[in-house]
Amino acid sequence: MTYCVAMRLSSGMVFLADSRTNAGVDHIATFRKLHSFCLPGERQIVLLSSGNLATTQSVLSLLRTRLGHDAPNLFNQGSFFEVAELIGATVREVINRDSGKQQSAVDFGCNFILGGQIKGQDMDLYHIYPEGNFIQATMDTPYFQIGEIKYGKPIIDRVINFNTPIDHAVKCALISMDSTIRSNLSVGMPLDLLIYKRDSFSPSEYFDINDNHPGFQQLREAWSMGLRQTFSNLVDIEL
Amino acid sequence: MTYCVAMRLSSGMVFLADSRTNAGVDHIATFRKLHSFCLPGERQIVLLSSGNLATTQSVLSLLRTRLGHDAPNLFNQGSFFEVAELIGATVREVINRDSGKQQSAVDFGCNFILGGQIKGQDMDLYHIYPEGNFIQATMDTPYFQIGEIKYGKPIIDRVINFNTPIDHAVKCALISMDSTIRSNLSVGMPLDLLIYKRDSFSPSEYFDINDNHPGFQQLREAWSMGLRQTFSNLVDIEL
Repeated sequence: MTYCVAMRLSSGMVFLADSRTNAGVDHIATFRKLHSFCLPGERQIVLLSSGNLATTQSVLSLLRTRLGHDAPNLFNQGSFFEVAELIGATVREVINRDSGKQQSAVDFGCNFILGGQIKGQDMDLYHIYPEGNFIQATMDTPYFQIGEIKYGKPIIDRVINFNTPIDHAVKCALISMDSTIRSNLSVGMPLDLLIYKRDSFSPSEYFDINDNHPGFQQLREAWSMGLRQTFSNLVDIEL
Repeated sequence: MTYCVAMRLSSGMVFLADSRTNAGVDHIATFRKLHSFCLPGERQIVLLSSGNLATTQSVLSLLRTRLGHDAPNLFNQGSFFEVAELIGATVREVINRDSGKQQSAVDFGCNFILGGQIKGQDMDLYHIYPEGNFIQATMDTPYFQIGEIKYGKPIIDRVINFNTPIDHAVKCALISMDSTIRSNLSVGMPLDLLIYKRDSFSPSEYFDINDNHPGFQQLREAWSMGLRQTFSNLVDIEL
């Protein structure tokens, strides 16, 4: 499984992904799920992936291979809507290639979160479904999650809105990830974190966060202690 | 959907259930999922149910109807293990009755949490699966959840162990339910809360908690404010 979350806020965007891939409990491996495509000064595109690893790797390979060609690619589409259409078409291309040839119960599906900015346009965030169709984040719903989304949703629902500052959003995303990792074995370290600041057209900051990362450890402990403190400070409920 | 949680702690047990039942988004109704069977001074049995409502209602009707008879019933079984076996057999009886007669994609499955105490024995907590088999809670894993379990699991994982006092456990269960209700439309008020104190052989306390319940409202607000406070007190993470 996987847990990825991305937020599109007034001052920038936050992308966070775990790196655990598993097929059953025997085949556990580390694969990165955060992919950055940058045309410095002109466009920054970030993709987060979940689902069938063969499908997502093929989609990303095709997207990367085609960058240098004249055919439609991530760098020559005029808008994020067109980029989302292109990725959706590539998802369908790969799933059509792999499925239906033999009887199989394999789920070839995958989900992508697509975000970033093209010069002259606003930042954009999309969730692309296994069918290749997609939805766009708005000010009302400024974040998307894919993969094992439920454990880490309550804290986001309580904290995040469109005007949340980026540094708060980063902390919230990391706490959401921490809650998921604690409750679900199929989501695991290391983490990829990419922060995009409005109109920078490059990854403003990128971090590879492993088990020994002092800042993340400190945040986990502070949150855990704070939660317990908050809990033990609750007055007795009058039933 | 449903969310139910039960805990077996050193000093007693806590049972909490929501009451929303839905088939799609059109058929939303309120059905109680907490069922108490008491032989005062001799045994207290509590059942929490999730899954196919036709199945769980049939199982409960059969269990109730058979109470007065000589055949095996909830009040004449010698141990909670035997009670769990009886409920498992009743689940299989109902599912066999309803399924397989016509082609249908309906899931007839259901899950039960069974807990309580029989005089002369220790308190016991079981999770009974749709197949009728079951597992028993231990000191290492002192709680079970059924239904929409993921949203409310992180707070339980952080707070509950076998020696948690009952009043803390009640607060934790209610917060876990609050997080689930906030994130998932298929779980809803009112709530049924039953507290069982060791060796009481009757429901020590039972509460019907609706939207306007002042104690629950106060707890929700205190927890929400405390979480936000904890969050805003976090020092900036050094990445």
